[in-house]
Amino acid sequence: MHEKKYDLVSDSRDSRYLTLRSLQTPQGRSRTGCYVIEGIRHLSRAVEARSAVQSIFIDPSVLSNHYGRKLARKLRKQGVPGVRLSCDLYRTLTMASEPQGVGAVIRQEWIPINRVAVPRNSLWLAIESIESPGNLGTILRTAEASGVRGVFVLADECDPHDPAAIRASMGSLFSQQLIRCSVHEFIAWARAKGVTIVASTPMGLMNYKDLPCRWPVVLALGSEKRGLSEQILDAAHFTVRIPMHGLCDSLNVAVAAGVLLFEMSSQRRGEGDVKQRTR
Amino acid sequence: MHEKKYDLVSDSRDSRYLTLRSLQTPQGRSRTGCYVIEGIRHLSRAVEARSAVQSIFIDPSVLSNHYGRKLARKLRKQGVPGVRLSCDLYRTLTMASEPQGVGAVIRQEWIPINRVAVPRNSLWLAIESIESPGNLGTILRTAEASGVRGVFVLADECDPHDPAAIRASMGSLFSQQLIRCSVHEFIAWARAKGVTIVASTPMGLMNYKDLPCRWPVVLALGSEKRGLSEQILDAAHFTVRIPMHGLCDSLNVAVAAGVLLFEMSSQRRGEGDVKQRTR
Repeated sequence: MHEKKYDLVSDSRDSRYLTLRSLQTPQGRSRTGCYVIEGIRHLSRAVEARSAVQSIFIDPSVLSNHYGRKLARKLRKQGVPGVRLSCDLYRTLTMASEPQGVGAVIRQEWIPINRVAVPRNSLWLAIESIESPGNLGTILRTAEASGVRGVFVLADECDPHDPAAIRASMGSLFSQQLIRCSVHEFIAWARAKGVTIVASTPMGLMNYKDLPCRWPVVLALGSEKRGLSEQILDAAHFTVRIPMHGLCDSLNVAVAAGVLLFEMSSQRRGEGDVKQRTR
Repeated sequence: MHEKKYDLVSDSRDSRYLTLRSLQTPQGRSRTGCYVIEGIRHLSRAVEARSAVQSIFIDPSVLSNHYGRKLARKLRKQGVPGVRLSCDLYRTLTMASEPQGVGAVIRQEWIPINRVAVPRNSLWLAIESIESPGNLGTILRTAEASGVRGVFVLADECDPHDPAAIRASMGSLFSQQLIRCSVHEFIAWARAKGVTIVASTPMGLMNYKDLPCRWPVVLALGSEKRGLSEQILDAAHFTVRIPMHGLCDSLNVAVAAGVLLFEMSSQRRGEGDVKQRTR
């Protein structure tokens, strides 16, 4: 087994293990600018999206999948550093109920706001603050599926590289352009680039079905509890609501994102570029 | 404090506590036909929906909210039996990070399939099997918000009374008509009542936006991993897909439910009955 050529780490005080552990905390991620992923699907999507793989870690006793082993071997041959971990240590690095035996440290990629190109009929998403990392990850997955070109993250505590967010994103994290900036910078960017701001709020003046989409456009979503800030609501060109039946006063924020983004996406000209599913 | 009139239970071997504990398992719920809820919002929604409250349990050290105390008092005065639990015991009965100090045992209500009335332009949902209780609860919440009249649950292992499902449903569980039946009975029902079956599948022949909604209509959703059975796909009048951008091959099932149900709901005649949000 080629994987054996990586050092075996089984001591929980080993600095290489401690570094991996630290990336599970917001502090560790913010200090290093890196994050941890686990599982064959995620690693494969990360490599496909040319994410910067810094190192890999393997539990050879679990990594039996042929494709997963091939992927790990390929990265090793490319000179990516790595370690083998004992089963116990590996387990602490994943939320998966059935770990797949291969994971990686990836460098975070944030696009500087002044380098964001804005095609004429592009769709964008701005997240002011989402409290649940699972919701955040599901929103990233939904954003990719609906053709969102990039996601603005407007709150420091909102971390798309949180393990639960990565897990729920199902790999969409790697192919998405992420932009971290302040609310003020975001509004200035939208104004400068002629991007229509659509704010989602239960108090929206317009039923989302009546929204006349003016391209390019960005949908702004607020937190599960507090919604959007006054600053964004004031700057928005349109405020939209999803009409509710029954006693419901709101939807799950990821479901609301899906309903709104797919409606906006379907109004886009040139929808011919959408992949037609064959399986 | 009126709540003090209930017996205090602090022994984890007390049968009243053990009964509450047992309702957190599928076996306990299925044996008794009851389930447990926790929190003021849930209890209040359950009472509002005239759910059959069998008993309540309280942690008076935590129940400080005025409305919650009033609700508990009202139920006690109506003769609903109850216990006070020690803080430790109470904690084991809730998934909430901040327990609210009041919960209840409720009798499950399943509508017999032969007693389901089908108004002309009604929207229905059939869930063949959803693996994650959180997804199931979010789907129930989304179903109520989009005006679904009742939810068919076609798999025994799919349990809307699971604590995680109840939590994610945000109270929608109580106001929804639930029907438990086999796939065969469901298909026979739809045929007998002239209900159009729309099946959601990545291999759907039709973009969901092109669906000509024929009322009454039922949307059928399959499991996260396996999708819908051949039996339902064969019986469906239409199979619809949500076109995907990027590398995504699917959406989270609750997000897909939201995109499809809100599209179908918006095509309904007489949408004037939708509440216009004012806050």
